[in-house]
Amino acid sequence: MKPVVYAGSFDPITNGHVDIIRRAARVFGTVRVVVLSSPHKKPLFSVQERLDLIRKNTADIPGVSVAGYGGLLVDYLAQESLSVVVRGVRGVADAEEEASYAYANRLLAPFVEFVWLPADPKFCFVSSSAVRESFSYGREIPGYVSEETARALRVKFPAKNLPSCSKDPEKN
Amino acid sequence: MKPVVYAGSFDPITNGHVDIIRRAARVFGTVRVVVLSSPHKKPLFSVQERLDLIRKNTADIPGVSVAGYGGLLVDYLAQESLSVVVRGVRGVADAEEEASYAYANRLLAPFVEFVWLPADPKFCFVSSSAVRESFSYGREIPGYVSEETARALRVKFPAKNLPSCSKDPEKN
Amino acid sequence: MKPVVYAGSFDPITNGHVDIIRRAARVFGTVRVVVLSSPHKKPLFSVQERLDLIRKNTADIPGVSVAGYGGLLVDYLAQESLSVVVRGVRGVADAEEEASYAYANRLLAPFVEFVWLPADPKFCFVSSSAVRESFSYGREIPGYVSEETARALRVKFPAKNLPSCSKDPEKN
Amino acid sequence: MKPVVYAGSFDPITNGHVDIIRRAARVFGTVRVVVLSSPHKKPLFSVQERLDLIRKNTADIPGVSVAGYGGLLVDYLAQESLSVVVRGVRGVADAEEEASYAYANRLLAPFVEFVWLPADPKFCFVSSSAVRESFSYGREIPGYVSEETARALRVKFPAKNLPSCSKDPEKN
Amino acid sequence: MKPVVYAGSFDPITNGHVDIIRRAARVFGTVRVVVLSSPHKKPLFSVQERLDLIRKNTADIPGVSVAGYGGLLVDYLAQESLSVVVRGVRGVADAEEEASYAYANRLLAPFVEFVWLPADPKFCFVSSSAVRESFSYGREIPGYVSEETARALRVKFPAKNLPSCSKDPEKN
Amino acid sequence: MKPVVYAGSFDPITNGHVDIIRRAARVFGTVRVVVLSSPHKKPLFSVQERLDLIRKNTADIPGVSVAGYGGLLVDYLAQESLSVVVRGVRGVADAEEEASYAYANRLLAPFVEFVWLPADPKFCFVSSSAVRESFSYGREIPGYVSEETARALRVKFPAKNLPSCSKDPEKN
Repeated sequence: MKPVVYAGSFDPITNGHVDIIRRAARVFGTVRVVVLSSPHKKPLFSVQERLDLIRKNTADIPGVSVAGYGGLLVDYLAQESLSVVVRGVRGVADAEEEASYAYANRLLAPFVEFVWLPADPKFCFVSSSAVRESFSYGREIPGYVSEETARALRVKFPAKNLPSCSKDPEKN
Repeated sequence: MKPVVYAGSFDPITNGHVDIIRRAARVFGTVRVVVLSSPHKKPLFSVQERLDLIRKNTADIPGVSVAGYGGLLVDYLAQESLSVVVRGVRGVADAEEEASYAYANRLLAPFVEFVWLPADPKFCFVSSSAVRESFSYGREIPGYVSEETARALRVKFPAKNLPSCSKDPEKN
Repeated sequence: MKPVVYAGSFDPITNGHVDIIRRAARVFGTVRVVVLSSPHKKPLFSVQERLDLIRKNTADIPGVSVAGYGGLLVDYLAQESLSVVVRGVRGVADAEEEASYAYANRLLAPFVEFVWLPADPKFCFVSSSAVRESFSYGREIPGYVSEETARALRVKFPAKNLPSCSKDPEKN
Repeated sequence: MKPVVYAGSFDPITNGHVDIIRRAARVFGTVRVVVLSSPHKKPLFSVQERLDLIRKNTADIPGVSVAGYGGLLVDYLAQESLSVVVRGVRGVADAEEEASYAYANRLLAPFVEFVWLPADPKFCFVSSSAVRESFSYGREIPGYVSEETARALRVKFPAKNLPSCSKDPEKN
Repeated sequence: MKPVVYAGSFDPITNGHVDIIRRAARVFGTVRVVVLSSPHKKPLFSVQERLDLIRKNTADIPGVSVAGYGGLLVDYLAQESLSVVVRGVRGVADAEEEASYAYANRLLAPFVEFVWLPADPKFCFVSSSAVRESFSYGREIPGYVSEETARALRVKFPAKNLPSCSKDPEKN
Repeated sequence: MKPVVYAGSFDPITNGHVDIIRRAARVFGTVRVVVLSSPHKKPLFSVQERLDLIRKNTADIPGVSVAGYGGLLVDYLAQESLSVVVRGVRGVADAEEEASYAYANRLLAPFVEFVWLPADPKFCFVSSSAVRESFSYGREIPGYVSEETARALRVKFPAKNLPSCSKDPEKN
């Protein structure tokens, strides 16, 4: 069976992503994790850094391969002769956005099938952007990323002195 | 690869169900469609009738098998040594209910994996209960069920004279 | 211009319904309010009582007519050569249900157009069922129904002695 | 400070309820858990059984008292001179229903304040009805209820032989 | 009857917009399509280009007029003595945003009435931004825009060589 | 009892914020309103201006204190030995975002408790960004902000001549 594709920006890979990859590998046997890069976005990590982090985070999962691609998902699928795309769905807002994404892609490439894996509740609120924001403040949310990923984030956001507070002197 | 399970009450099977079965067969190769019957519900069609309608509606889809089961989904999976369950998800309300269903089942049987297929927009509003209700009024919504299913429904709801209206004589 | 149709069970008419009728009359000129009765439901008020309450509640709105019908909405529309249906939409859950209702009806009768009026926030939580339930406990939620409607409800639910409470003697 | 009220049918109390009670006790100091009984509903457990289970499940939480009441929440609050009501909110569907419930109650009794505690993700899908249904099939979902509650449920639903499956002989 | 107003940025007009205009014309007789321009946004098409595309896309719909306006919707309505605004609503997220938009506008100008047309399912995921993004990648989603609009988009996004992929040499 | 914290950017404080503060003061006795400033955002009002507006808008509410803080909420709570955070929840979209925010904060600081107050329907669509946008067009939405806040906004957005419209000369 051909690999299913799990594509995204993975900037960086979170424990929520790893959970979806692990389950997709169990269901489908092989998973191709694809870092999609866009000229419109300025990522925190380079494609190479993101690929490295994905490899390290999925080293213990059999059947995982990794690739980067600088274009549309459907072009990657056509070029690789792949047709099944896996998506993690974390909640109601996700479901609406994902339905739109699946529909547009299936109109572009009718051979494509989207399968959704419902996120585990403990990963329902995990996102790369939440991870980047918390590290930008020098804080790490336990359980959101692996130690490997956390190390890479600490390099991007060196420790800093937390800002002081300005209490209201009148009212307290 | 073992078949994936697509379970429900299918009372009766709609074109939305058939679309999910066709796509699941394409993605996974083989699909077991399971009619779950519950002592708490009074279905319109007997298990046997529902199985027959599913067979007729999926006759052209390779890799489909059919079974009835009078218990919980997880017991069926354990007994058959199957682990992947396919669900169609039609919208936001569905996604919330399905997340709850998947979570409870995975707690009961951690080996189970749920995969969701996003419903095609043209089937987003199709449901067995909407079908039963419209036929109970002697009306058939085009595109909701196959001709096979419609024939079976017409037997359950013989043609009747539509009720007359009582217009307001004062105001018109 | 032909009247638009505002149909429902109106069991009983609430201030939320009246607000939609008033706005529909302003937008479209004339509104036909249609009490749909179903053999499957046991209403609190008879069709005649519901029609009477609608007339009393809309007496000051020009362009309102009232009718009862014992069948499907689309049959009423076909019989009366009407095509525009007005619906009030109170929130997210309503919007999903209403989309399904509009879609099924447009498949049954492609000439039908649905227009939605977004409910005023102060009526977003008003419903006939909430009204019936509160009166069944002898309580009236201010602003949900007119005095006319309240009077009719009080006849259905005569005043009763409120049940006594059984406090926990051990813990308090 | 007066106790806050946490009211519901608790048929039976789940671990999700216990989590809300524990957090409400931490935030507010004292919590009154009120079993509301309605003549319209046929509960699985009697009021007395439900009160007993709540006491057992909250024995280690300081500041918890328990009461039963056979009427509307606002009447209980007025009679007890209490004004703050705590509700657990588990997701999007809950939030819409709870907003409606809070609004109606505040119209009935403007002195009432509702405060919501967002459910922990691991309890987001736990409900008394899901618990009752799984036990009715002889299955227990791990983590949904305490051992105390499970024991009481097993008495209501004695072990039974699970129904056999009727596999499709033709297709397999 | 005065025309209803269908306002937006139409950058560019999609087939979803055209469907709403066609249905609004059927329901209300005449529709004024208004291109609202804002100094805060940098559109892809100039106001003049957008007006031209709207005219071409609606040439076969009787009762459509077109205008541009560089201010708030309510100011346009006041100036033109118009009061009914038509909006297309595509799903749950749309419904929440639209409710907020209607409420704010009705507070600004109480004479304004908003009427929503539920989007046809096949246009539920169509948006100008999705159209712009796909053309920026050199891809056209079938059914999202007319050939007229597609031609104008191709001028804005000349054909380019699609970027090559960088497959992971280690894992495959 | 220690004050509860109501934190945000308050750029500027709206009548929706004031309603939450008033109700929080009633429920909890004392409320600390904290202006969180972030180096990533460019606010319309300085921290000092925002603190002043909050003081003026809450002058009649007993138990309110005000503070500014240039870091993460959890750091402020730890520094001040406070643990209860109050949030206003305005609807379905809010509830999903707020659940994510509460979850991340509780992982960062397990001692923190979030309590939500459901927004009054008449404030459900009020937001600082809607206020800023309407004043940027020289329009004031009645009921969204106090006269104090409106005055400060008028200073930021001096009166201007509203842009003229360019009607379509061909079609009208």
